[in-house]
Amino acid sequence: MADAPPRPEGGIELVPRFTDQGYSADQVRERREWLQKKLGIELPLVGASAIPSDQMRGNIENPIGAVQMPLGIAGPLLVNGAHANGTFYVPFATSEGALVRSYERGMVMLTRAGGVTARTIVDGNVVCPMFSFESVDEAARFAAALPDHVEALRAQADSTTRHGRLGRVEARVSGRSVIVSFYYSTADAQGMNMIVKATERACTWLVANGLAPRFKVFSGMSSEKRASGFLLSGGKGKTVVAGARIPAAVLQAYMRITPRQMVELWHDTVIGHLQANAIGYNGHYANGLTAIFIACGQDVANVANAAVGITDYELTPEDDLYASVTLPSLTVATIGGGTMLGTSVECLRMLGCAGATHAPKFAEIIASAILAGELSMAGAISSGEFVNAHESYGRNRPQPDP
Amino acid sequence: MADAPPRPEGGIELVPRFTDQGYSADQVRERREWLQKKLGIELPLVGASAIPSDQMRGNIENPIGAVQMPLGIAGPLLVNGAHANGTFYVPFATSEGALVRSYERGMVMLTRAGGVTARTIVDGNVVCPMFSFESVDEAARFAAALPDHVEALRAQADSTTRHGRLGRVEARVSGRSVIVSFYYSTADAQGMNMIVKATERACTWLVANGLAPRFKVFSGMSSEKRASGFLLSGGKGKTVVAGARIPAAVLQAYMRITPRQMVELWHDTVIGHLQANAIGYNGHYANGLTAIFIACGQDVANVANAAVGITDYELTPEDDLYASVTLPSLTVATIGGGTMLGTSVECLRMLGCAGATHAPKFAEIIASAILAGELSMAGAISSGEFVNAHESYGRNRPQPDP
Amino acid sequence: MADAPPRPEGGIELVPRFTDQGYSADQVRERREWLQKKLGIELPLVGASAIPSDQMRGNIENPIGAVQMPLGIAGPLLVNGAHANGTFYVPFATSEGALVRSYERGMVMLTRAGGVTARTIVDGNVVCPMFSFESVDEAARFAAALPDHVEALRAQADSTTRHGRLGRVEARVSGRSVIVSFYYSTADAQGMNMIVKATERACTWLVANGLAPRFKVFSGMSSEKRASGFLLSGGKGKTVVAGARIPAAVLQAYMRITPRQMVELWHDTVIGHLQANAIGYNGHYANGLTAIFIACGQDVANVANAAVGITDYELTPEDDLYASVTLPSLTVATIGGGTMLGTSVECLRMLGCAGATHAPKFAEIIASAILAGELSMAGAISSGEFVNAHESYGRNRPQPDP
Amino acid sequence: MADAPPRPEGGIELVPRFTDQGYSADQVRERREWLQKKLGIELPLVGASAIPSDQMRGNIENPIGAVQMPLGIAGPLLVNGAHANGTFYVPFATSEGALVRSYERGMVMLTRAGGVTARTIVDGNVVCPMFSFESVDEAARFAAALPDHVEALRAQADSTTRHGRLGRVEARVSGRSVIVSFYYSTADAQGMNMIVKATERACTWLVANGLAPRFKVFSGMSSEKRASGFLLSGGKGKTVVAGARIPAAVLQAYMRITPRQMVELWHDTVIGHLQANAIGYNGHYANGLTAIFIACGQDVANVANAAVGITDYELTPEDDLYASVTLPSLTVATIGGGTMLGTSVECLRMLGCAGATHAPKFAEIIASAILAGELSMAGAISSGEFVNAHESYGRNRPQPDP
Repeated sequence: MADAPPRPEGGIELVPRFTDQGYSADQVRERREWLQKKLGIELPLVGASAIPSDQMRGNIENPIGAVQMPLGIAGPLLVNGAHANGTFYVPFATSEGALVRSYERGMVMLTRAGGVTARTIVDGNVVCPMFSFESVDEAARFAAALPDHVEALRAQADSTTRHGRLGRVEARVSGRSVIVSFYYSTADAQGMNMIVKATERACTWLVANGLAPRFKVFSGMSSEKRASGFLLSGGKGKTVVAGARIPAAVLQAYMRITPRQMVELWHDTVIGHLQANAIGYNGHYANGLTAIFIACGQDVANVANAAVGITDYELTPEDDLYASVTLPSLTVATIGGGTMLGTSVECLRMLGCAGATHAPKFAEIIASAILAGELSMAGAISSGEFVNAHESYGRNRPQPDP
Repeated sequence: MADAPPRPEGGIELVPRFTDQGYSADQVRERREWLQKKLGIELPLVGASAIPSDQMRGNIENPIGAVQMPLGIAGPLLVNGAHANGTFYVPFATSEGALVRSYERGMVMLTRAGGVTARTIVDGNVVCPMFSFESVDEAARFAAALPDHVEALRAQADSTTRHGRLGRVEARVSGRSVIVSFYYSTADAQGMNMIVKATERACTWLVANGLAPRFKVFSGMSSEKRASGFLLSGGKGKTVVAGARIPAAVLQAYMRITPRQMVELWHDTVIGHLQANAIGYNGHYANGLTAIFIACGQDVANVANAAVGITDYELTPEDDLYASVTLPSLTVATIGGGTMLGTSVECLRMLGCAGATHAPKFAEIIASAILAGELSMAGAISSGEFVNAHESYGRNRPQPDP
Repeated sequence: MADAPPRPEGGIELVPRFTDQGYSADQVRERREWLQKKLGIELPLVGASAIPSDQMRGNIENPIGAVQMPLGIAGPLLVNGAHANGTFYVPFATSEGALVRSYERGMVMLTRAGGVTARTIVDGNVVCPMFSFESVDEAARFAAALPDHVEALRAQADSTTRHGRLGRVEARVSGRSVIVSFYYSTADAQGMNMIVKATERACTWLVANGLAPRFKVFSGMSSEKRASGFLLSGGKGKTVVAGARIPAAVLQAYMRITPRQMVELWHDTVIGHLQANAIGYNGHYANGLTAIFIACGQDVANVANAAVGITDYELTPEDDLYASVTLPSLTVATIGGGTMLGTSVECLRMLGCAGATHAPKFAEIIASAILAGELSMAGAISSGEFVNAHESYGRNRPQPDP
Repeated sequence: MADAPPRPEGGIELVPRFTDQGYSADQVRERREWLQKKLGIELPLVGASAIPSDQMRGNIENPIGAVQMPLGIAGPLLVNGAHANGTFYVPFATSEGALVRSYERGMVMLTRAGGVTARTIVDGNVVCPMFSFESVDEAARFAAALPDHVEALRAQADSTTRHGRLGRVEARVSGRSVIVSFYYSTADAQGMNMIVKATERACTWLVANGLAPRFKVFSGMSSEKRASGFLLSGGKGKTVVAGARIPAAVLQAYMRITPRQMVELWHDTVIGHLQANAIGYNGHYANGLTAIFIACGQDVANVANAAVGITDYELTPEDDLYASVTLPSLTVATIGGGTMLGTSVECLRMLGCAGATHAPKFAEIIASAILAGELSMAGAISSGEFVNAHESYGRNRPQPDP
């Protein structure tokens, strides 16, 4: 992108440019003061940033400080995962009243019921470039030949990164174009930029070797930061499932409803999802995901894809409840991006998830927390307590709370 | 929800309970220290919250401090809206490197091209309760009779709120259930809790008057905080369009591509969206929406619905580019929720959008900013500069930046 | 379309052209013989058409005879509809073995259970032209002004037809375009061509009066002969629901399963539908719809939209089964199109549905039959008898039946 | 299914039962006469069946004769396929006026432009059973272990059929269930029943060997006879692409529009498809598919899945048009099912596609014909001739044609 946009002229006043992009404390302050003066406002809290400004390089441009968002904790959450094992207190950054209380209620119930079983099924990420040809014939031939070149592609792609590894490669012919899905393992990084670079290298090799005339590194199919049905097939981030058997008595004690009422709620709201032409089915994944992502320095825009999944409630033969969530595209990281910045690393430490090797553990904790939130909201709707709960805890009304 | 969950027993250790829910500075510190001790970690930056803890009541439970996220500004963005008019510098809270620079590039180009035209088409919100009956016959009769009761429903609903107004009411029969969409105007509030309460009142009236045996206030169809096709029909939040004509020379100067290349990119990535079974079409609405929502104290989880929309690029007869974004479900607020908290109100002030009457203006600025981001990303992909840009600005690699 | 395509040249041999398009018996025979000679094959059964060739005018071009498809009947089907009341034997034209038996089984069971309750909720059809403007501003203004012109549009549209009536008109702004949905009642005709013509007249009026510079009569949104989520909102054809309460003992006697097993099957296959990103939920609407549409002279391609809907199975408080189907876009006709041709009118007569005023009755019978098919297939899958049934009745194997 | 449903009682009068299911000419007549008498109507044309009734066994139950539908031909269609090469005259069974003429126009234009290039990319079919477990842990373990058993599954599956071969096997964990996609090659058969039987055998083996407690042979994910996004990934039937470069002069001569107008139409109607939340993008695949399927003895209900695909129009650098269709799930057969019945085999012979080895050829001809139909309809809409064409050729009005 433009390193130095055209200079101001014709009344366009650019944000001030600084030497070395302006990440020193003075430069950040100077930029903020420029804005304050220009707009005639004061930004004291924005200026009260606890993140050393030099650490912001690589995470933001034109910095003027930091925003702050309340942080609460919900727990205990007992997780029996393949990677996460133990009792957790989960950080939520949010300004939506009643949200933490709602997740907490579900967590306590799940813990009382023996905890959540969580499993990371797939751990990777995907880029889907598009190759364009003159005719459907050339496209078909390219797709047919591609399997012969997978080793070469892997060598190219893997040469660009120490953390990503190219797995399978799938071609989908669409008219005279071919969309190729490059599936990678990305270790503990969200890894999107890493694998885009690797993919670009592999694609360039295909063009250089005369196998395709041109490509675009994005076709839109990978659904990065968007919702789509494709995401349900997994491969974009972790695919995680979390489930728990909840005895009827425990459900009654915490939610004041029966397993059968939960199953009925699932039925009714599945109908609503079908009528809405929704993708998958969930109550409010986005609530928990957003709050945890903000707290833990994740790329919050990934909630758009991570919130695609399926919640399920079933009666067991004993008329208890089996509840589960499936998150096929949970894009999370414990290294890279914003994970090391200021409060983020502190929040990751609360979960024992800061740094390398912890991404699958982090994914399992998140999925377990999401299950708690689903149950709690479903319970509130089923029991008719939803409105009351928000009246009690939430700042739901435009007028200030008394 | 449970005001006082069951006391600790059997090894379950609840988050400490405090008098009056524990929002005093001391109580927040005490809670944080309890967690620090329990986990054996330190949380100094979380504790360095600039938000007075008492102000957090109604926005979070179990608070232990605040998280901080870098804040940058992008602009200038010239908007010719029905409500927003002028040049804006837009606050982005993010830790994704290159994002602010990318949006800024698009904004400067749009401003140079004469600015963005933005229009708020619809301003409202919707709740979709489900009524359940014994048979399809009863459901059909209820749906047929509903139009006769709209005035009564309006009286009931509007009695619960000073800000929301019930508009049209639509019934959709699904088997022996009927999903009824209650469409409201919500003024400057996001208003979800407000209109849920109003809807519950109206539904209760229907039951009390023998018109339906029972209801659930949510059917799932309204798609609050979820992605769905239903959202494209509008009614959940503001429906906003923003568009601009960009002369070929301006596009070339800023993006180094031609209008025809942009249209070709649109074509290619539409194919990718169709192959992915995506909802609508966009490049990365979630990036800009998330960053602005976090900065401005919005309910960030609403990005899941707000990011549904359609970006469009067309050649004009003069072979210039006409670019537009349509955001049918942009749920934003300038009062209520987290809008008044600490840094949020400062960010809203940057846009002249703090407080009542400003929500449509805010929506138009956001849509204009989103258009800038779409153009900039599309340009980077088309020109093949995407990877380089992220290499230059982003902290894309797991290893620390040198 | 080209009335007289370019004459043969350069090796292109057109299908022979005849005076007055060639619908006389001799001309049809001559055309068939031309093809037989050209290909070196015989077409005796195609020639054995019982439809007088002159009657084919308006229903097909270049006729060479007729195809034949086996016709079977399934019943009795007891329907308690708003329009259909009585016991029916439903004609199915199909070559898929076991299909008629499967529907019959469901019909007998439903009849034994007291019959199907069916209701036509909506009866209409919709065309969605697109208006294109120079800017989002013009598009927004057009959409805002449209309600003022509905009466004029109605006058224009209704002037073109004696059977269609324009109902509501809804505008959806998409960038600088506006898609306007014109909803009509169409009486007993499928009516698509009729209302397209009416809509074209109305749109032309808007352009002639300077309200829009141009339009295309189709935007693709109406989903005629395609599957889409939009169809679930109804308005394209009849919206029909059909439901029945089936006592557990009856279900057991006919399907050898319990209501709870049916509900469990629904659950499992809903998950499959969600994973597939299907539209709505159904077992095999297309089977019954296709067979009845072919038999009764419907526009069979409309199955693509008519097969969108939702099947539902619920436990009653007494642990019986309540089963329903919702078909929001059942495009059927009892006049016009192929309804009067040869065997079609005979099949419509079997249902007492030939000619004017019978379309809603026909729709209710079809929905009831579809419910029977859903139950029968679900039962076969649940009980594990699906494969056996197809082995017994179907010609499922490529090798000829012994 | 019930071989002998409960005997008539309580006023339920079953369709008469005959020895050996009643396929002799006398029995068919007797059944028809029973119905005539019962309803007080005559069915002379239904009785004028040219299909020997004994041949109907395995294709229908309770036969009473046959229906007839007009058959027309469209062509010439020049196809340059991998399997189909030459000029074809394609049979359409329909009663929708103007349809054959519309397809013919497109075919002649394509032939004049040098013909259609068509390629069969994938040739197979898929069944997606669901395995259910007690917990997400068991489901995850099953999915992880499945790759070790693929050879055994293949042995089991392939033992049941001489024509199907099990290819890859893919597991998708959804909560505590696992949906397993069994992909087969099916040679020239549509093969659904064949591979369902094979899959049932393989699943039974998994249960017998203690790898899973239970399964249902259908999860709904395979989308047999339904529309879904899953179909776009291919594997259900043939995946076929067909494309052609159409010089601007040829397009002008036949359609009276420019390539740029076609591309603009694509753009506009893609917006309509996105707004409708359609699956893929097409003009009217269902029209051509239905007419050819009926003519050629295909399982017509498969149109519901076969009509999912993507049509594409692009400008070439020379400003000609490149048009293509992609049909990922074209379920067609040249043996089995209804392909050998009466007129069906005659129609298949018209295309040189009757019997074994011809299914891919048949698929390529169909895709080429579908492309012709897309172009012709798009041209008619673009040029504004759509309504006129239907006025000239179609029986569009409820009132009888004069």
